[in-house]
Amino acid sequence: MTAGSARAFVPGHVTAFFAPHSHENPLRAGSTGAGFTLDDGVDVTVTPAPDTAIQVNGTTLNMDPVERVLSVLDATVTVEAQTPLNIGTGFGVSGAMALGTALAVNAATDGDRSENELIRIAHRAEVEAGTGLGDVVAQARGGIPIRLAPGAPGYGELDGIPHPTRLEYVSFGNLSTPAVLSGDTSPIRTGGQAALAELRETPRLEKLFELARIFAKETDLLTDRIERVIDDVRAEGGEAMMAMLGETVVALDTGLSDAGYDPSVCHTHPGGATVSP
Amino acid sequence: MTAGSARAFVPGHVTAFFAPHSHENPLRAGSTGAGFTLDDGVDVTVTPAPDTAIQVNGTTLNMDPVERVLSVLDATVTVEAQTPLNIGTGFGVSGAMALGTALAVNAATDGDRSENELIRIAHRAEVEAGTGLGDVVAQARGGIPIRLAPGAPGYGELDGIPHPTRLEYVSFGNLSTPAVLSGDTSPIRTGGQAALAELRETPRLEKLFELARIFAKETDLLTDRIERVIDDVRAEGGEAMMAMLGETVVALDTGLSDAGYDPSVCHTHPGGATVSP
Repeated sequence: MTAGSARAFVPGHVTAFFAPHSHENPLRAGSTGAGFTLDDGVDVTVTPAPDTAIQVNGTTLNMDPVERVLSVLDATVTVEAQTPLNIGTGFGVSGAMALGTALAVNAATDGDRSENELIRIAHRAEVEAGTGLGDVVAQARGGIPIRLAPGAPGYGELDGIPHPTRLEYVSFGNLSTPAVLSGDTSPIRTGGQAALAELRETPRLEKLFELARIFAKETDLLTDRIERVIDDVRAEGGEAMMAMLGETVVALDTGLSDAGYDPSVCHTHPGGATVSP
Repeated sequence: MTAGSARAFVPGHVTAFFAPHSHENPLRAGSTGAGFTLDDGVDVTVTPAPDTAIQVNGTTLNMDPVERVLSVLDATVTVEAQTPLNIGTGFGVSGAMALGTALAVNAATDGDRSENELIRIAHRAEVEAGTGLGDVVAQARGGIPIRLAPGAPGYGELDGIPHPTRLEYVSFGNLSTPAVLSGDTSPIRTGGQAALAELRETPRLEKLFELARIFAKETDLLTDRIERVIDDVRAEGGEAMMAMLGETVVALDTGLSDAGYDPSVCHTHPGGATVSP
């Protein structure tokens, strides 16, 4: 690591179902819902530099939420991210980039922001950029987060399912979060709220997968290709679901391998985003 | 692991300063304050058995908070804990035992309690047993927790200092948490509240150590032996503090080694208590 630089790791986050919640205060806006954080995530290194530049796996990109975080923290740095996850396929990479940048900039500049303050900055940046609603708070927490109430620390409320597990995933392509969130979200809100109420009654893994499948179908977000893969996994006795929002299937344990796919393998992330020592 | 058994890991927790907060509802009772969670912690294995028995490092003990957790969860099990930490020396071992037992029993019985429910059960058990006020919620969170508002999930509120670090510690003996908490706690409350207000202004490691030293002195909890060790560390340019409540000194990084002591070495725990996969 270059002198003056700092690193943070942020787990990926796959949403199983969600209900968007808009509010004029971006710290109160967000979503309720549930999903998995993954030990496949994003490693973010920031280094003071004459000009800001953002790279993911070596490719220079514009990333609105990251630029917003840098602006709030008044930082001019290079942001270099390494990740096995693809942007736009439902793993919360933009949220991870925003949160990882906030944590790493604070560490690199010997800043004195608390964790909640840095999470609030990243959450606000995602909400204002329209790139996500609930990833940042879930990624800060780790585990299998249930988002009980929307919004950043101080407003939102989280719980979790205490069952660490192996997961497998395959991605076929992108779905645009801004495009979905700017359309008619009332069926999503209704479906997401119903799923959350049921998961709170029975906070179990199998229930989470079942509710995710119902949600994907009822909201018309399920694609034919994803439906076929989920059916294949279930035919072998496995549990699988679609990642919101991406053309991605996530299966419990060895579900995709058992059905003959060649998936990426990871585990739920135990503890959420951290500055790297 | 025996069939039907399950394991959980709970980090140790060292309190730097605290303000006790009593309430007739044990979920609202607790403490505000700040401290460190440690990757030295307690590994708890529970196994269904005809009779309940609780062992720590092979020695059978009565532990009121653990028995309360088992009673709420209606579990008859052996609880076997392994830990490098000593009970009564300020590392939150009783809180770790209570929370680890709750998490492991839920996993062993394929229970469907959420993480917040299990934390609430353990927090309540500690408060009712009089063995602790803020360890459980801090241990569930990990990192360097700041307890902004007292109580279990749903009532309490947490933040954290985003600076993972190496720590060293030496322990000379026990202080009784129940004895201190059943005495006149008003100087502790006043000192703890003042320290918290100041830490919220400047959530930094050096500030946490400084406030801990002031708190230990002003509350008369500081012993002569602990004061000498802290002075030795500071004479070498290090940061050190007394653990609340134990005759234990915790130093930043290599503070105790630099002063010629032979300390135990650990790091802040990144993510808080988890069921072991």
